[in-house]
Amino acid sequence: MRAHPGLFITFEGGDGSGKTTQSRLLSGWLADLGRTVLGAREPGGTELGAELREIVLHRRGYIAPRAEALLYAADRAHHITTVVRPALARGEVVIQDRYLDSSVAYQGAGRVLDPAEIRALSLWAAEGLLPDLTVLLDLDETHGRARLDAARDRYDRLEAEESEFHARVRRAYLELAAAEPKRFLVLDAGRPVDELQAAVRERVRMLDAVSGPHA
Amino acid sequence: MRAHPGLFITFEGGDGSGKTTQSRLLSGWLADLGRTVLGAREPGGTELGAELREIVLHRRGYIAPRAEALLYAADRAHHITTVVRPALARGEVVIQDRYLDSSVAYQGAGRVLDPAEIRALSLWAAEGLLPDLTVLLDLDETHGRARLDAARDRYDRLEAEESEFHARVRRAYLELAAAEPKRFLVLDAGRPVDELQAAVRERVRMLDAVSGPHA
Repeated sequence: MRAHPGLFITFEGGDGSGKTTQSRLLSGWLADLGRTVLGAREPGGTELGAELREIVLHRRGYIAPRAEALLYAADRAHHITTVVRPALARGEVVIQDRYLDSSVAYQGAGRVLDPAEIRALSLWAAEGLLPDLTVLLDLDETHGRARLDAARDRYDRLEAEESEFHARVRRAYLELAAAEPKRFLVLDAGRPVDELQAAVRERVRMLDAVSGPHA
Repeated sequence: MRAHPGLFITFEGGDGSGKTTQSRLLSGWLADLGRTVLGAREPGGTELGAELREIVLHRRGYIAPRAEALLYAADRAHHITTVVRPALARGEVVIQDRYLDSSVAYQGAGRVLDPAEIRALSLWAAEGLLPDLTVLLDLDETHGRARLDAARDRYDRLEAEESEFHARVRRAYLELAAAEPKRFLVLDAGRPVDELQAAVRERVRMLDAVSGPHA
């Protein structure tokens, strides 16, 4: 049984993995089924979040890494408390683009802060709220490389580093999914859009059948 | 032995306990002895901190309690990393008005968040930096009550609550001091200014004699 009558679904994966397309299709399907769906994202999901996003992304000058992590966590705390939890309590479906797994995977790949600490910080901020379902759209490296190749002629050092960074993010995501198989649905993002969406819907149908109010 | 060649001294206590007077006198004395002294405070010790202070103190509308705690922690992380640690590494004396003990004591008294969690959050933000000396200017309740009495004729409910809140802050401070007797110097804030300052200087002299570069 879930702690709330709603459904909290997050989409994770690298840029270009199709998160927006899949969440939009899922959202439309659920709305057709009569569910109220809230699309959410971080940072910047609230007015306070927008102010913090402005500080983190557009401020000139150095920000200490822990200060930056704490600002993202503050945004998360406010967003979850004032937007996500009330919607879930009303029985709505919240579909969110990126959540704590992004923080953990990207911090782990960046190698500045300890990913376990970032996870603990995120969970404290969100008072322990985990998604009911996290869809990981896993893009393999061949795919990523092909996209890079299409855009540019040859790899220079920066591109190689970038490619290595994305490989680390991917590994971190897959480790998170392996640690929580019940929460995660891992899909090969290279598959056709409609096949992916069918797999996502099947999993959501199962979740709702088990404990949702609209079986 | 301390981890840095500097000296990190914090002043704690309720409003009106004499922190500003005592830290100013200490600062002047240390400067006369040839030490470089940096006066610091939170929130707002840096440009980023000033922006965050503006958000926390002057923004209209609700801020989730954990978001607020995380914003203060972000300010602390940035301030400690970019201002306090570099000064300590240069061998300077940093005298700060309020630090993590304030966060813990006031959160504990406010009864919204767990003080142990606030302490852990603060220490994570500051990468574990604790003061070499914390002077707690302890103002007993008779004193606090006398000040209130002077200002107003009778107690109404709000004033009684306020008085109870300050009593809880005081108890929380005293518990923190009892748990770390080596770090804390607890002084009765009702004593004459020069007596208090003499006690503070004696303790600073001891600290410097043990491990400082300017014994």
